[in-house]
Amino acid sequence: MKKHTVVFEPAGARCEINDGATLLEAAARAGAGLDSICGGSGICGKCRVVVQDGMQSLSAPSDAEKKFIGPEDTPVRLACECRIYGDATVRVPPADTLSRKYARKVSISLDPAVKKYSIKIDPPSMQDMGKGDRERLVEALRAQHGLSGLSLDYSVLKGLQDTLRKGRWDVTASVWMGREIIRLEPSVPGAAYGLAVDIGTTTVAAYLCDLGSGNVLETFSATNPQAAHGEDVMSRITFAITSPDGLSVMQGEIRDCINGIIKETGLTPGDILDMTVVCNTVMHHIFLGIDPSGIGAAPFVHAVSRPLDVKARELGININESSYIHVLPAASGFVGADSAGVLLALRPYSRDEKVLIIDVGTNGEILLGDRDGVYSASCATGPAFEGERIKFGMRAAAGAIERVWIDPDTEEPSLEIIGNTRARGICGSGIIDAVAGLFRAGIIDKTGRLRLEPPRTRLEPPRAEDLPHTERLRMDAEGRPEFVLAWKEQTDTGSDITVTQADIRAVQLAKAALYAGTKLLMRRMGMERVNRIILAGAFGSYINKESALAVGMLPECAPENISAAGNAAGEGAVLALLNIGKREEAQRETAKLMHLEVSTDPGFQDEFLAAMDIPHR
Amino acid sequence: MKKHTVVFEPAGARCEINDGATLLEAAARAGAGLDSICGGSGICGKCRVVVQDGMQSLSAPSDAEKKFIGPEDTPVRLACECRIYGDATVRVPPADTLSRKYARKVSISLDPAVKKYSIKIDPPSMQDMGKGDRERLVEALRAQHGLSGLSLDYSVLKGLQDTLRKGRWDVTASVWMGREIIRLEPSVPGAAYGLAVDIGTTTVAAYLCDLGSGNVLETFSATNPQAAHGEDVMSRITFAITSPDGLSVMQGEIRDCINGIIKETGLTPGDILDMTVVCNTVMHHIFLGIDPSGIGAAPFVHAVSRPLDVKARELGININESSYIHVLPAASGFVGADSAGVLLALRPYSRDEKVLIIDVGTNGEILLGDRDGVYSASCATGPAFEGERIKFGMRAAAGAIERVWIDPDTEEPSLEIIGNTRARGICGSGIIDAVAGLFRAGIIDKTGRLRLEPPRTRLEPPRAEDLPHTERLRMDAEGRPEFVLAWKEQTDTGSDITVTQADIRAVQLAKAALYAGTKLLMRRMGMERVNRIILAGAFGSYINKESALAVGMLPECAPENISAAGNAAGEGAVLALLNIGKREEAQRETAKLMHLEVSTDPGFQDEFLAAMDIPHR
Repeated sequence: MKKHTVVFEPAGARCEINDGATLLEAAARAGAGLDSICGGSGICGKCRVVVQDGMQSLSAPSDAEKKFIGPEDTPVRLACECRIYGDATVRVPPADTLSRKYARKVSISLDPAVKKYSIKIDPPSMQDMGKGDRERLVEALRAQHGLSGLSLDYSVLKGLQDTLRKGRWDVTASVWMGREIIRLEPSVPGAAYGLAVDIGTTTVAAYLCDLGSGNVLETFSATNPQAAHGEDVMSRITFAITSPDGLSVMQGEIRDCINGIIKETGLTPGDILDMTVVCNTVMHHIFLGIDPSGIGAAPFVHAVSRPLDVKARELGININESSYIHVLPAASGFVGADSAGVLLALRPYSRDEKVLIIDVGTNGEILLGDRDGVYSASCATGPAFEGERIKFGMRAAAGAIERVWIDPDTEEPSLEIIGNTRARGICGSGIIDAVAGLFRAGIIDKTGRLRLEPPRTRLEPPRAEDLPHTERLRMDAEGRPEFVLAWKEQTDTGSDITVTQADIRAVQLAKAALYAGTKLLMRRMGMERVNRIILAGAFGSYINKESALAVGMLPECAPENISAAGNAAGEGAVLALLNIGKREEAQRETAKLMHLEVSTDPGFQDEFLAAMDIPHR
Repeated sequence: MKKHTVVFEPAGARCEINDGATLLEAAARAGAGLDSICGGSGICGKCRVVVQDGMQSLSAPSDAEKKFIGPEDTPVRLACECRIYGDATVRVPPADTLSRKYARKVSISLDPAVKKYSIKIDPPSMQDMGKGDRERLVEALRAQHGLSGLSLDYSVLKGLQDTLRKGRWDVTASVWMGREIIRLEPSVPGAAYGLAVDIGTTTVAAYLCDLGSGNVLETFSATNPQAAHGEDVMSRITFAITSPDGLSVMQGEIRDCINGIIKETGLTPGDILDMTVVCNTVMHHIFLGIDPSGIGAAPFVHAVSRPLDVKARELGININESSYIHVLPAASGFVGADSAGVLLALRPYSRDEKVLIIDVGTNGEILLGDRDGVYSASCATGPAFEGERIKFGMRAAAGAIERVWIDPDTEEPSLEIIGNTRARGICGSGIIDAVAGLFRAGIIDKTGRLRLEPPRTRLEPPRAEDLPHTERLRMDAEGRPEFVLAWKEQTDTGSDITVTQADIRAVQLAKAALYAGTKLLMRRMGMERVNRIILAGAFGSYINKESALAVGMLPECAPENISAAGNAAGEGAVLALLNIGKREEAQRETAKLMHLEVSTDPGFQDEFLAAMDIPHR
């Protein structure tokens, strides 16, 4: 059989593969660590590669591919669909730093903040000397489009004369909120893009939208570079307080990160005319360069509740410099603009049935209510659910163990790994599965103790070597118990991947915080039980509901009434980008939100301790 | 008699002087070129020096001095009043670049754009978490001062939390136009200053005002550094067109110049809360970074007629960064914001009698009218009236010959020199006097020809040496006629100071442009004669009315009805700074202004040629 050589850049991994094999098969053979969620069925779009050389050696794009790869002539291909009939070199996009997937239609009537107007202007004459070019432009917009009282951004004014002449008095004005001209282009206008950005404590997601069609064109994600200063919001506050220029360092980092995404879009920055931002209140303050320290201690004061519109150039964000960046309202120090985004996307305030919405990031944001009123609470879950502070934890990227079953009889685990490659670590949904599986198999007890750890209550604990252990349940080099999920032969790292006692404690702390917060909110509303749970956030989309119920992360609820909403905060940012009515709605509804501050609630400690047990006491 | 050594920095000039002599006497002896208008009588304040060493060697400040030198402990002294009783070193302020004079009361009801409000804010509590600090501040301003709908500048927002805590919830907000909070200070507020700036083509003048009292505290002037690129507005336009980055270079120069003046005030930049700007339309565009090339050629289009409010930080002007800089309206490419300032100061539109207002700078701005309507015109006089393009021309600074009489019988000139020092050159008023005197004495004829120059009309001109000449009326080294105003023994430069034939031609061109423009305007209004003339601008203040009439610079008018208004444009900027009603008035009245474009008027050439004669044909 004919063989071909495929090279995967930038790693330079290569392999020989049979004629007609797919690029995904070649990637697995070469160990190129290519990402695939759907297991090669052409539906997730995660295995995109860019063909650098040998385009003619590859199959024509399939129908499945065409949904993801954009224009006909793009070198982008889906590796799982693309078959190899000759030598080729492809580039694997950086999965851990920036990934993207294509086009999604959001169902909302389009009414963006920035609209474009074509106008013809009378050229100036000696009879007309009392009018400046600005006055001629503003009058034409009134006469031809009925827009009155328009102002001109200073930067647009600077280029005004040049643009009018280049366009031969035939120009396109981009008008913000019917009030201000924020861009002027000669003659035929280019496309109008908007970017909806969700600044997470750990991950930044951005949605590139076409303001003309309302389509989400691409999704980008990147690691928040501030993570270097600590995983959770408190550590960022601490860095801002204790480090000279800590605040401006972090503001610069998130600015550069967003500008990196903008660069990645490949668009002319000036064509991005609008941007919306959702994030928690600490990220909000840092993004705006506002001291977040007030949020860190009672009475937890934040700087501003209202939504803000700040010029892109003031924030150093490289979209059209005269454009405004709309930051959704941060109702309080705890209820951030990300909650405003979740509210917009899931609209609990228009539901007849009470719904519990849990957005699990580094912070757990909880919303509970219906059309009679919505309560919010926030709890510090820590980064365990995002795969951080877990010995072999990693983000949900290629090589992450995302599903775990442990056979209660044999105590043998079965694993599902993102990208169908060798395991590199465990992501958040994997660690929840693992803890649930360990509990079901009796390897840990309800206090979360691995069987190998002597119970704390006995006066004379047995020596560890006397405790029941298996090959997988063992002591590590430092005498601490751990459970082996994957032997080194199965991994990409050359070492065993284990779940440690500390990992289990981290999961218990995180789920207890979330459960206790939820319970307090339910009690405040006089509820014994919730009938509907929506899990928001990337983590919520991948979590195994049964495992989440088994470890006691969620209150009791029929699994069929638990659903995942994906990144609802980001979707809210998209909605606010595409429809300015949604901006008002966000302001109105966040102002009505009632907040329960769980950390200072007298009942919290008891709830929290009770919730440490598995599933809970 | 006891002798003391006095050193004058930065030149390092020094002298030995008798005990009890004044610093001004010492400066004259040392040749330190110290500026004095009043001739040492303690009233002009121009001879200020800064004592660097030997304060104890000097007399206590006199009452006359105290009016000028500010606080008791300042090292600033008036050289004419300060007596020497020991060795001392003093610094002479750079007279040609930055000079200042003290306090003047402007009679206008005070209603500045920026007002300060003291407020007490309830500290945040856990019961109050839905309100950000911004909302608490805005509500307090509404409750305590009835201000509603306030917005917050982004930069103020950034420092908000810090300021509220430093002030212990007792703060002072500076509010712009009742709309926007542009500064927040903890507790007791500092003073509120404003700066009114007149950007001339050659000279920048600035008036530092106390927004609390309405007093003009100090006046500053500096050379416009753009002068290096040419003397008149056309040369600046040329530089902007032909030089890469020419526009941004010039914008940077005027920005740095104004920032230099701000530094010179010695104030904390943040205490300067407002600024108004007047200037001609080319300076206006360059200051704002707008391409001025449209103004340079028909149809002479400028970018914007409306007044503008641009954030100081956008322009890089170092006042309070959130403040707005108000640029008065530029009615057309020719009628600049400087005319708006003159209008505000002299209000022709509220007069019953028609008044002719002439603002002579590098450009001559002419206004003519009364309450029934005001016409404007502009003419390129060139820089001769400012002492430029004159062989021994100089600005009106120490050493400039500012008054000239020539005895018709003896043809001997008498001179008056600024600062009572040796002559260094001739300023604008001096050269007008000189031309008028030469004409009266018959040394030049009505065509402006020096007696030594052969008339152009003769077929066979006489040889120059045959023409009547005197010791003062002579040929220069290159055989060109000139008249000696000051022998080198009388000068500070070591050479004779003369008026050349070219100088006389330059004056003729300038005065002819002005006269022709005035005549055209008068004709447009059906006027044969004007009964009242006001000369605006620094030059207008020093000009000898009789000389101006004698050379035919002004239309016929009784000398007692000709008055000088000083820098009326700058005064208008001060008025707009102190009273926002004046900003509206400026916009309203400049919009009503009728403009006559003289350079393209078919009658201009004839008028201009007729006006070349002395006084005119």
